Amino acid sequence: MIVDDIHRTHYSDQIHDSIVGEEISIAGWIEDIRNIGKMAFLTVRDVRGATQVIVSNETLKKAIDTPRQSAVIVSGVVQPSKSKDFHLELKAGKIAIVGEALHPLPIDPTGRVESGIDKRLDSRALDLRNPKTSSIFLLRSKVLDNIRMTLRSEGFVEVNTPKIIGSASEGGANLFGFEYFKKQAYLAQSPQLYKEQLVLALDRVFEIAAYFRAENSNTVRHLTEFLSVDIEAAFIDYEDAMDLAEKVIKNVFRLQMADRKDYALNDLSICRLTYEDCLEELRKEGEKLEFGDDLSDASLRTLGKLHNGFYFIKDWPVELKPFYIHEKQDNLRLTQSFDLQYGYLELISGGQGQLTL
Amino acid sequence: MIVDDIHRTHYSDQIHDSIVGEEISIAGWIEDIRNIGKMAFLTVRDVRGATQVIVSNETLKKAIDTPRQSAVIVSGVVQPSKSKDFHLELKAGKIAIVGEALHPLPIDPTGRVESGIDKRLDSRALDLRNPKTSSIFLLRSKVLDNIRMTLRSEGFVEVNTPKIIGSASEGGANLFGFEYFKKQAYLAQSPQLYKEQLVLALDRVFEIAAYFRAENSNTVRHLTEFLSVDIEAAFIDYEDAMDLAEKVIKNVFRLQMADRKDYALNDLSICRLTYEDCLEELRKEGEKLEFGDDLSDASLRTLGKLHNGFYFIKDWPVELKPFYIHEKQDNLRLTQSFDLQYGYLELISGGQGQLTL
Repeated sequence: MIVDDIHRTHYSDQIHDSIVGEEISIAGWIEDIRNIGKMAFLTVRDVRGATQVIVSNETLKKAIDTPRQSAVIVSGVVQPSKSKDFHLELKAGKIAIVGEALHPLPIDPTGRVESGIDKRLDSRALDLRNPKTSSIFLLRSKVLDNIRMTLRSEGFVEVNTPKIIGSASEGGANLFGFEYFKKQAYLAQSPQLYKEQLVLALDRVFEIAAYFRAENSNTVRHLTEFLSVDIEAAFIDYEDAMDLAEKVIKNVFRLQMADRKDYALNDLSICRLTYEDCLEELRKEGEKLEFGDDLSDASLRTLGKLHNGFYFIKDWPVELKPFYIHEKQDNLRLTQSFDLQYGYLELISGGQGQLTL
Repeated sequence: MIVDDIHRTHYSDQIHDSIVGEEISIAGWIEDIRNIGKMAFLTVRDVRGATQVIVSNETLKKAIDTPRQSAVIVSGVVQPSKSKDFHLELKAGKIAIVGEALHPLPIDPTGRVESGIDKRLDSRALDLRNPKTSSIFLLRSKVLDNIRMTLRSEGFVEVNTPKIIGSASEGGANLFGFEYFKKQAYLAQSPQLYKEQLVLALDRVFEIAAYFRAENSNTVRHLTEFLSVDIEAAFIDYEDAMDLAEKVIKNVFRLQMADRKDYALNDLSICRLTYEDCLEELRKEGEKLEFGDDLSDASLRTLGKLHNGFYFIKDWPVELKPFYIHEKQDNLRLTQSFDLQYGYLELISGGQGQLTL
């Protein structure tokens, strides 16, 4: 580990008692400067946390003249701190300013002054330095990793299917079309038909990728581009598929919640209601619904109140599911299908097909 | 583990001596049938290998009448085999045909009869049952997993950036455009500009996703859609970036080659030539090249012969690299850039930028 003007030797969370007295360097951005005359306290934040830096003498002027949020590399010696917020601190020997920030800043990334979403998006890099914002990205990355781990441990192979397709494969509604060298092409809405072909040989496949729907609805629940976790397996039925969905969800919670005593994972049992169970429950709540009616947002909100957290709705009528979902053998009006709900939100949609070569 | 008509209990590679005498069930497709009168030998293949199945008595007729490549679930008892190809075999009790194959088959997925690429793509699911074809998919999945593992262990956060973009961000050449609710939109060519913003807060990010280029060149090296492994880190220089690329490549080989004694991983040291080194080498080979000329396919083929396997070409001239690659501080005609080559093929392109808020 070389202490120079370019390289960090430690992230903020690697500064422990065991390195007191050592010369190290950290890299991040100046979140705060408190000038108390002969010295100043800097808070230098990186993606993993914050470090208190003490500057005095020759580095003092440079430090207090640097605009907040400037990117810096600070080398110095680790020492115990008298601050109530920091157990250890860095006594700065050298400060290199590798990127000087604008002054004044367009938004306050510390969160002390709130900004509207438009202003935040205009200065997104700065907005991402708010730990509240970046934590979403960090958690998301962990969850994706966790989903992949579960699927791989269950024997699934990761595949990548085409996003540019030549024909409107799934009905053709809500497709983005474009010209592809004088031919018509579309952006894929899902890898459904590719997945089905792939499992005929690879047995179990998954893909995590962006898909596209030309949804002309300006709501938070209609996205034109979204990340989809697609899973397909041969030789299983739709109850097995629900078991797998449950395993994926539970593992996400298991890893993320490992350090939270207040979260009892074993309590997470996901009940499997039928579509007709739901109709009955909704009728009891006064809704006028007939077999074959889709469950509206209002209906799902009612169900979400009756069933806290996760629940499945299975055995949907044929008319509400796409052609590749098979009918139930004992009732041809129903399909071997399910949705996984979290309250009123649909998280997963699945079902059993029937394919032959 | 329940032996029934729907579920497998074992994959072909899970049939070991320890389960001789046990009743199990396997699922896959009939690759071969050898009828010897009172009994027949089936080869049932799944994604992990093949199992020999012996059928006689009541299952015999059903088995020999089933077209090859039909999907089946076979339950029976594991016993030692006299075959020279199989150490153990399954004495069939029951055969369920879950998907009957066409007869005759459009192509031969066992590879004994070769088909042209067009016919193979027309029957891709069948073609994928050729272990030679499926092995590419299985290896690819492992390599992706391995790349992610290396990057995560180096502190990288997985991100997903938009594929639909509103402006031609990187020069505008080779973009697919389309109408997005009466506005002009484009398919992203790379996450470059997003990555650069993200590292200002997240420090180290990667994305593995499909990107799009309207390349009107019908060659095997010009793809309109491709999977890109994009990596970006703050507070490192381009020599560090080459170190990281080397680590990613070596780890891929380390895991894939763990069982190959003939492959000496430690020999894999990747030399770092400069662009000007390459010019000199090519001139010695008789090529007329001046500073600033791009290296043609022919030139790269010559270099590929001089440098076996992997090598870097670094310090490219400013005019050959995009605007976001920074100049070298000690020579403003050169950039802090590199390509990783494997023979004549460019595998990675990278460089050092300079960003401030």
